[in-house]
Amino acid sequence: MSNLTHLDADGAAHMVDVGGKAVTTREAVATGRIRMSAEAATAIREGAVKKGDVLAVARVAGIMAAKKTSELIPLCHPLPLSRIAIELTVGNDSVTATATAKTDGKTGVEMEALTATSVTLLTIYDMAKAIDKAMVIEDVRLLSKTGGKSGDWHA
Amino acid sequence: MSNLTHLDADGAAHMVDVGGKAVTTREAVATGRIRMSAEAATAIREGAVKKGDVLAVARVAGIMAAKKTSELIPLCHPLPLSRIAIELTVGNDSVTATATAKTDGKTGVEMEALTATSVTLLTIYDMAKAIDKAMVIEDVRLLSKTGGKSGDWHA
Amino acid sequence: MSNLTHLDADGAAHMVDVGGKAVTTREAVATGRIRMSAEAATAIREGAVKKGDVLAVARVAGIMAAKKTSELIPLCHPLPLSRIAIELTVGNDSVTATATAKTDGKTGVEMEALTATSVTLLTIYDMAKAIDKAMVIEDVRLLSKTGGKSGDWHA
Amino acid sequence: MSNLTHLDADGAAHMVDVGGKAVTTREAVATGRIRMSAEAATAIREGAVKKGDVLAVARVAGIMAAKKTSELIPLCHPLPLSRIAIELTVGNDSVTATATAKTDGKTGVEMEALTATSVTLLTIYDMAKAIDKAMVIEDVRLLSKTGGKSGDWHA
Amino acid sequence: MSNLTHLDADGAAHMVDVGGKAVTTREAVATGRIRMSAEAATAIREGAVKKGDVLAVARVAGIMAAKKTSELIPLCHPLPLSRIAIELTVGNDSVTATATAKTDGKTGVEMEALTATSVTLLTIYDMAKAIDKAMVIEDVRLLSKTGGKSGDWHA
Amino acid sequence: MSNLTHLDADGAAHMVDVGGKAVTTREAVATGRIRMSAEAATAIREGAVKKGDVLAVARVAGIMAAKKTSELIPLCHPLPLSRIAIELTVGNDSVTATATAKTDGKTGVEMEALTATSVTLLTIYDMAKAIDKAMVIEDVRLLSKTGGKSGDWHA
Repeated sequence: MSNLTHLDADGAAHMVDVGGKAVTTREAVATGRIRMSAEAATAIREGAVKKGDVLAVARVAGIMAAKKTSELIPLCHPLPLSRIAIELTVGNDSVTATATAKTDGKTGVEMEALTATSVTLLTIYDMAKAIDKAMVIEDVRLLSKTGGKSGDWHA
Repeated sequence: MSNLTHLDADGAAHMVDVGGKAVTTREAVATGRIRMSAEAATAIREGAVKKGDVLAVARVAGIMAAKKTSELIPLCHPLPLSRIAIELTVGNDSVTATATAKTDGKTGVEMEALTATSVTLLTIYDMAKAIDKAMVIEDVRLLSKTGGKSGDWHA
Repeated sequence: MSNLTHLDADGAAHMVDVGGKAVTTREAVATGRIRMSAEAATAIREGAVKKGDVLAVARVAGIMAAKKTSELIPLCHPLPLSRIAIELTVGNDSVTATATAKTDGKTGVEMEALTATSVTLLTIYDMAKAIDKAMVIEDVRLLSKTGGKSGDWHA
Repeated sequence: MSNLTHLDADGAAHMVDVGGKAVTTREAVATGRIRMSAEAATAIREGAVKKGDVLAVARVAGIMAAKKTSELIPLCHPLPLSRIAIELTVGNDSVTATATAKTDGKTGVEMEALTATSVTLLTIYDMAKAIDKAMVIEDVRLLSKTGGKSGDWHA
Repeated sequence: MSNLTHLDADGAAHMVDVGGKAVTTREAVATGRIRMSAEAATAIREGAVKKGDVLAVARVAGIMAAKKTSELIPLCHPLPLSRIAIELTVGNDSVTATATAKTDGKTGVEMEALTATSVTLLTIYDMAKAIDKAMVIEDVRLLSKTGGKSGDWHA
Repeated sequence: MSNLTHLDADGAAHMVDVGGKAVTTREAVATGRIRMSAEAATAIREGAVKKGDVLAVARVAGIMAAKKTSELIPLCHPLPLSRIAIELTVGNDSVTATATAKTDGKTGVEMEALTATSVTLLTIYDMAKAIDKAMVIEDVRLLSKTGGKSGDWHA
């Protein structure tokens, strides 16, 4: 079971020891998309154009979710986030979210960026579901991570 | 802005009034998949085969996230979940999660099923990310909802 | 100690028994104001006018705080909120928040409306504090409550 | 939109980057008051005199709320509080709360002190509301902040 | 695996379906004890006698923990508690906590009463640990449960 | 009231100032046991043997509770846990849990280890309560703490 670092030699889950790791500046960027009908995308675009709160609600949801990551993902370490930002782009039949998370800590913030992305997209689903229940969240993935001993990574 | 029920006439976000709706039994099923390298899928399968906690951790994360849905999705109503179950299938290069949520309440549990699905998949990402950082969460969507005035819906 | 219902005969805090009370529709409205420099009020108004997220962030904070009321106020009963809405008005030297909370439950939602109001105003403080640290939150109070055996109340 | 640091150039809310700031000892003191009928103030004073839990419940609520600040205020950074204390004074027709928060961190603890003050006062409202529903929370404001690059500030 | 109701036929954890159960009034009483040195017990008794907050803090912790039970115990259903009370008795070398929880719901409140008891005792440990680190929490158990189809139970 | 460090000179609860303490590596180990009928212990052992999630659910509950310690214990400081692990042993009529918590922080992690132990055992109670309601949680205590100025301690 050596390949899954979150399981010990007996297969038991644990939160791995990061005590010996150095505190460094770490950043992660994740992205994802919710595909929807043109009608739903139009409603969101118009909601946004008319100063409605639609994108703001999704952004706030993502930011707050990033701060809850270690409560949601059982084996994640709590981390003091120093920055979180979420960019939203409304397309013709989709909304794309890109989340950037940053910390000065002992472990990376990939999960924070991915969690922010997922909850942002779920919040858009929630707000548009009266129009379209068949929306699909897709292509949620890490774009990059920097900082930390294991080195930088780019998709 | 009439199409987005979560925005009022001025575009301001609010939690819509469900006070007048009837309490009925409502169920929702959602699904999603995390695509990964064969190496990562093998590690998860072996972790599971050897009685490791890997699938259990993901399932518990999803169940607990379902109970946190109204904390995560800003305009979601709090709901007393009467059941939540998550089924996981490990494929050759992916893991599929299917979540079923149920309530006796005034509004549906789509967001609970979708949130459970997303957090289950994020937890698998977390456990396998030392092997594969390029995993992609995809095809997260509602399969069905039943109960409530708006009628049943199937994907 | 008979006057403080949250203390028993020995002065010990407890969450009072509402088990025997009827489930009825209950609503409460609360309001409050944050007084600030003209410069800060202008920044908020312009942030809002230019489609910035400033009022949306405050509104979402208040809505989410309403759902957390029983976690924050130790002797408050958990309640299934059926509606929560927050109205914001930007004046020349202040922002006024008015929160409406509604439930079908066994006890009133005054604390939910007051908590939503307070957290909305604190969030505005947070966003404008780089401009003005001397802002004052004031006049936070209940405007009305309806429903329940004790009858309606209006300020 | 340059004046509101929590909004970016496009007006989008984000949690600003404090990664480059130094870790220093920071302290903030906030205060506020709940004005009430003489009858309510007397009930609280007697509850306290007779060793009832009334002030303790309010103090604990404030302390616990300080630790939840970054969950409540969307764009607040999580901070490791090193101290939190709340002083309560019962007057003839009011209760005054003063909260002191301290951290060794990259950003100030004004919001923690203000949130602790607000929730302390809301908790007093909750305990006395059976006697007086017209209580008013007022004069909630920062008294001082020390530490950090922007220098000390006193009301 | 038929004996453990929280595991399905394949051994997978799930939150069992209580949707078909009737809403009835349910109550549970649990108790437990923390054994400590005479010195620690004296400090607590004197803290309490001199109107210190020591027992109040423990009681509030227990009450708030009861409301968090379904967040802590993964397969517990969320329940609207209608009452929670905690009684504390300081002995010569121990403190005993007894918690009563009540709901009108579809499932029992044993876990709420046991969780309240445990967190109350942990809080006492926290406050007295500078005096005595060897304190032992013991005899935490259910005293009774009433209501619900499975009938009453008494220890 | 000098003996209870969490109460000030007037007996008021506060979160003591740890700002002046050094950041050092600190570890704590706690243990506890749930005594049960042979039938319940057998069900748990078989659930575990057959790859059921029973021990994993308890372990995850304990790990997640450790991260919530400062939310549950009112005067506990928030701490960035760098490791948490829980070991479970199923005996003939009991299950024993041992939790290890670690941080690089300004204060110890005894409460994190004890909270993880307690919630792990409560979760086992929850899963086995359909078989045996008379289970007793006992002997929950600190085994050791290391690091920090006050020196090491072993039971």
